[in-house]
Amino acid sequence: MSGTLYGIGLGPGDPELMTLKAYRLISGAEVVAYPALENGESFARAIAADVIPEDAVEVTIHIPMTVERGPAQAAYDQGAADIAEHLDAGRDVVVLCEGDPFFYGSFMYLFARLSGTYETEVVPGVTSVTACAAVSGRPLTARNEVLTIIPGPLDAALMQDRIAAAEAVVIMKVGRHLAKIRKVLDALNLSANAIYVERASLPSQKVLPLKDAPCDAPYFSMILVTKGQDPWLN
Amino acid sequence: MSGTLYGIGLGPGDPELMTLKAYRLISGAEVVAYPALENGESFARAIAADVIPEDAVEVTIHIPMTVERGPAQAAYDQGAADIAEHLDAGRDVVVLCEGDPFFYGSFMYLFARLSGTYETEVVPGVTSVTACAAVSGRPLTARNEVLTIIPGPLDAALMQDRIAAAEAVVIMKVGRHLAKIRKVLDALNLSANAIYVERASLPSQKVLPLKDAPCDAPYFSMILVTKGQDPWLN
Repeated sequence: MSGTLYGIGLGPGDPELMTLKAYRLISGAEVVAYPALENGESFARAIAADVIPEDAVEVTIHIPMTVERGPAQAAYDQGAADIAEHLDAGRDVVVLCEGDPFFYGSFMYLFARLSGTYETEVVPGVTSVTACAAVSGRPLTARNEVLTIIPGPLDAALMQDRIAAAEAVVIMKVGRHLAKIRKVLDALNLSANAIYVERASLPSQKVLPLKDAPCDAPYFSMILVTKGQDPWLN
Repeated sequence: MSGTLYGIGLGPGDPELMTLKAYRLISGAEVVAYPALENGESFARAIAADVIPEDAVEVTIHIPMTVERGPAQAAYDQGAADIAEHLDAGRDVVVLCEGDPFFYGSFMYLFARLSGTYETEVVPGVTSVTACAAVSGRPLTARNEVLTIIPGPLDAALMQDRIAAAEAVVIMKVGRHLAKIRKVLDALNLSANAIYVERASLPSQKVLPLKDAPCDAPYFSMILVTKGQDPWLN
């Protein structure tokens, strides 16, 4: 009988924001898989480091950071094959995912390759979106507000259209797109309402008005924008 | 010295989807507060029931289910006053919140009344959005997709505009708005792509194509819509 594939959301970075279910599955795991940069660094593994059993087999999926998709997809092919070998041998495999597996997560690439063949369970996690809101001092959405979540790499004109039509806005994966995003928010006269949050829930966390955001924003940073007058106050 | 106010996200319903931090704070709590219906039922308390210490003081905030906001706001005034009494006496107060406190959560009303005076910490939780995606068998968002989250009570014409302009769509708090939402999705020719999820992560969970959704959808139900051809497959 084949093993089960688990895609496990680890939350935004603070290991204490892992769910009880994630903790149980990881601490009992025989095989633990995770994506890593080419230099071996893995944010997902770092979050779960204290929970992974010493004798667990670890499967590292090295993801090349190229613009073309081919090399990364080849890495997921290889990772899926490595994981399938364990599943075929009847061993469950726990895949570590920062945040939530199905929310802009790379787990989807393994899911696409393996879930048709093997029993698969996705364990949701706390996303960086609500982790950033929690430290921003301002509710994300109230009542009947529409929330629009926008990836930072989006084209500037499209981003401007989306934000113009939105009520509450979250811009994720800011990183090197910060200058573009500033221009878009300035054009919409929304910069004064924008909060910048970097590495929410980690010791290095920063929460700043957008105007004070550092020029070298990391990939794990986010901008929260509200329009209107704090509808949650009444 | 005053106590600290904690707004604690409990996740979508399965107690095992509570974070380790929520578990620690609740299991060590002296005072636990939560919203409840007028009949005393509290979904938040039900999620945390096995973790609340037997000798904890419980503060129940009875929220009248009226269309006018006045009675509910008066209930939050009273709840905030009850909580403030404990904080003034130096006792920390843990407020239980289903899902995440700042994501369409009623905790915002206590936050507005108390966070200016008392030290306040918000502990994010797993939202029903990613919990529904986890069981839907389909990633919520990939790559540079914009995600639009829409509350079910939104006006039909406005809802249609928002969905027309969106890529991935989540419609929350479906309940008695199901018939209206069906019409909107039919008009946009998106019903075939829609998945209905009810009470994700609970034993009574249902996951169905929208066409098979029950007519009496509960408040805790959601519809997930994707456009396009599963961009996560490659």
